[in-house]
Amino acid sequence: MMTAYAELMAFQRQTEALAQIAGRLGWDQETVMPPGAMHQRAEEKAAIEAVLHARRADPRLGDWLATLADKVQDPVMVANLRLIRRQHERATRVPAALAATLARETSIAQRVWADARANEDVAAFLPTLERIVALRREEAAALAGDGDAYDALLQDYEPGTSAAALTDMFGALRPHLVDLRHRVIDKARAAPVLTGAFDEAQQMALAAELAGVFGYRQEMGRIDRAVHPFSSGSGQDVRITTRTEASDPFNCIYSTIHEVGHAAYEQMIDPAHHLTPVGQGVSMGVHESQSRICENQLGRSRAFTGWLYGQMRARFGDFGITTEEAFYQTVNRVSAGFIRTEADEVHYNLHVLLRFDLEQALISGDLLARDLEAAWNDRFLADFGTAIDCPSHGCLQDVHWSLGLFGYFPTYTLGNVYAGCLHAALRAALPGLDDDLARGDPGPATAWLGENIRKFGGLYTPGELITRATGSPPDEGPLLAYLSEKFTTLFD
Amino acid sequence: MMTAYAELMAFQRQTEALAQIAGRLGWDQETVMPPGAMHQRAEEKAAIEAVLHARRADPRLGDWLATLADKVQDPVMVANLRLIRRQHERATRVPAALAATLARETSIAQRVWADARANEDVAAFLPTLERIVALRREEAAALAGDGDAYDALLQDYEPGTSAAALTDMFGALRPHLVDLRHRVIDKARAAPVLTGAFDEAQQMALAAELAGVFGYRQEMGRIDRAVHPFSSGSGQDVRITTRTEASDPFNCIYSTIHEVGHAAYEQMIDPAHHLTPVGQGVSMGVHESQSRICENQLGRSRAFTGWLYGQMRARFGDFGITTEEAFYQTVNRVSAGFIRTEADEVHYNLHVLLRFDLEQALISGDLLARDLEAAWNDRFLADFGTAIDCPSHGCLQDVHWSLGLFGYFPTYTLGNVYAGCLHAALRAALPGLDDDLARGDPGPATAWLGENIRKFGGLYTPGELITRATGSPPDEGPLLAYLSEKFTTLFD
Repeated sequence: MMTAYAELMAFQRQTEALAQIAGRLGWDQETVMPPGAMHQRAEEKAAIEAVLHARRADPRLGDWLATLADKVQDPVMVANLRLIRRQHERATRVPAALAATLARETSIAQRVWADARANEDVAAFLPTLERIVALRREEAAALAGDGDAYDALLQDYEPGTSAAALTDMFGALRPHLVDLRHRVIDKARAAPVLTGAFDEAQQMALAAELAGVFGYRQEMGRIDRAVHPFSSGSGQDVRITTRTEASDPFNCIYSTIHEVGHAAYEQMIDPAHHLTPVGQGVSMGVHESQSRICENQLGRSRAFTGWLYGQMRARFGDFGITTEEAFYQTVNRVSAGFIRTEADEVHYNLHVLLRFDLEQALISGDLLARDLEAAWNDRFLADFGTAIDCPSHGCLQDVHWSLGLFGYFPTYTLGNVYAGCLHAALRAALPGLDDDLARGDPGPATAWLGENIRKFGGLYTPGELITRATGSPPDEGPLLAYLSEKFTTLFD
Repeated sequence: MMTAYAELMAFQRQTEALAQIAGRLGWDQETVMPPGAMHQRAEEKAAIEAVLHARRADPRLGDWLATLADKVQDPVMVANLRLIRRQHERATRVPAALAATLARETSIAQRVWADARANEDVAAFLPTLERIVALRREEAAALAGDGDAYDALLQDYEPGTSAAALTDMFGALRPHLVDLRHRVIDKARAAPVLTGAFDEAQQMALAAELAGVFGYRQEMGRIDRAVHPFSSGSGQDVRITTRTEASDPFNCIYSTIHEVGHAAYEQMIDPAHHLTPVGQGVSMGVHESQSRICENQLGRSRAFTGWLYGQMRARFGDFGITTEEAFYQTVNRVSAGFIRTEADEVHYNLHVLLRFDLEQALISGDLLARDLEAAWNDRFLADFGTAIDCPSHGCLQDVHWSLGLFGYFPTYTLGNVYAGCLHAALRAALPGLDDDLARGDPGPATAWLGENIRKFGGLYTPGELITRATGSPPDEGPLLAYLSEKFTTLFD
């Protein structure tokens, strides 16, 4: 039996290494790939995805899993077998040709999307989006069997959840968010704004410093610029990207802290798990909890922004804000902006709920790609009280759907809910947290996250993990309490 | 039959795409990889090499090749089958475990070598070198059968050649090079030298300009810095690296032109051959002919250096050289320097012959790794009249052996011989060449190379290709005539 496990894990270790390579191809494409290499890159991605698919569907996996079923007690071994089985079942349900086609199409689609976004040209992206929706619908049908197609896609990102459960949770959130929004929006509009230009090289230098402050180990990573900030890789090579804009240093600062939350999660997983299924973050929702707690509950706190204010004055000189308190208001300004990744904490989840509803409709077939822009614009006007002025502020703003990522968006709000739970537990465990943050040192907080969440990788399910760390199952209550307290104090 | 060919090529196309990915992992490692990722990277490389090895050894290839043997007339198809057969035979002879071990060891060795070189510490590199020599000897034995081990390794780089043939050719070159060296070395010592510091960002800007001048299409490539300049990739994604040194802009300039020679060769192959065996440079020797003719016969010509002088004055101001003629002498200064990649045209091949002899002895077992440094230093003193002062100027200067590249060095001199043949033919075909070069336009020359060498990729064997382009089989005569005429005119 131990021989079967050793054989299985030796095979799986190679698969994990190949998956790291495939992931790094994506990093390369977004950061350093020559623009003229698009078509060849699509073939390369299809080739490695075909290899990965063949390995994940390999009948030997089925044999090993059958041999080992119910014979293993060690929790790490149990978890690895559970994760391998899930991947194997998925791979055997999706035809290899479909997997390869999806890889090739999404590779090309990414560039088509970027061009369409740059040219404010929704029509240029539509045929591509239609193909990707059709392919993902086909995949969802293969995965779901008799079940719900969208639920089947959700399992790739947040195993164990369902559209129904999320709809309940989001339904509980929404009225409170809308209410909070109305309570604070007028006063928040009066928050001071930054003035002047912020040297982009200095922004990148500050990004590197903040990355270190939030526990990112750059000797096993790197920071580059990309259109859409992301974190990529596991184990010893976890890279992040950020972006800079001369007029808005917060874009770079908070994108960096956000991606460092993801990257440091991967970096703090027990190295004994490297290149095994357990050696990666357990779900997109838990991943997002790690990025959002760093970005918001820690990075946008009164204590930390006090320290950050001094850092920014030292780097950028005068930028029109004269006190820490005013700076705290500026950082936490609430306004109905167009862009999800730049949204404040009050509006952010409303952006996500919009996408969650629209992508469910795309996958069910209730919404056609050609009607997406109108549906987006109507919903945005209704929820945010503002009309979309151009597609890059609307349905072309996110890379996700061009990558075929349907079922991913709701994990952002789920991550915020988890972050709310973890933040409450963290505050209880570390009474001196604000003193640390005021010194620019989230180290004790990230160490607590390391010990209670990060080091475990995929050992526990998302629900188990949050329950172990906080003492209670995930619930939207702590997030709502945190938001309400923070923003009514700031702006009510 | 056409079905078998189509199936074979569909399979092969995926293999070629995976090989491009594996090559880009090497690029990544040398340019952007975090230092702490070394061990994981070694596993990744081993994993993808194992996939490539399994595909190249796949029994289906043997079946397809048997079905198609002698049934195909089209020259492109014939060439693809020949190249696939060679790769398949190699793969079936080398055990998969050995191939994976070699990939893993050489990945780690590269960093060990770089550290040893930085620390001037040969002993730190020795155990690694011993392991790599042992592994390559084992591989050579598997490949050679009853034949010569070193010859077996040569086939990877220059198919169809042998140590005996190279020894003959190099034997014919050597006395003439030694004689030429003695004739010019004293007067060449008086050639003017550059003074001052050369801004490294300006060097990189000049490198980008020169890359364009020599036909490199940057929309399908990129230029980065690395310890050891190289070109990487085929088809739509061919990247080069260069290096800068504030005191020596020629290092950057001529490394760049050299690597662009390689890269533009790949870029000018008929796109119909992309991701097929024919779609790559045919051999290392022919590759080197393309880099060396750009670097030396074109880039270091009187006509081109006249143009380059103006460019450098415009970018760097006064650097102690006041005429084009003096600049031409400076560019072509002859001195017994330590570093192969910085060597003048007279000494360069003597560097290669040293390595050719030492690596044959390492592979035959006549020389042990621990005796390498002494053997290198003795030979260098004898050939160059100077004692090696530190290992980075001696046996630690080149990355090749750490990568397991034994049998590669002689293709550098073979490339110079081919370049000599091609240059003579090029001069005959383009009587206005010097006028073009004096305007900084090697375009007609690179177009001639495109039409007569580059576009064919692997369609012809190296010998056929040179013979078609020049009208005669490869011979060292034209190279010697060119060197003798150039350097006695300059310095006799």
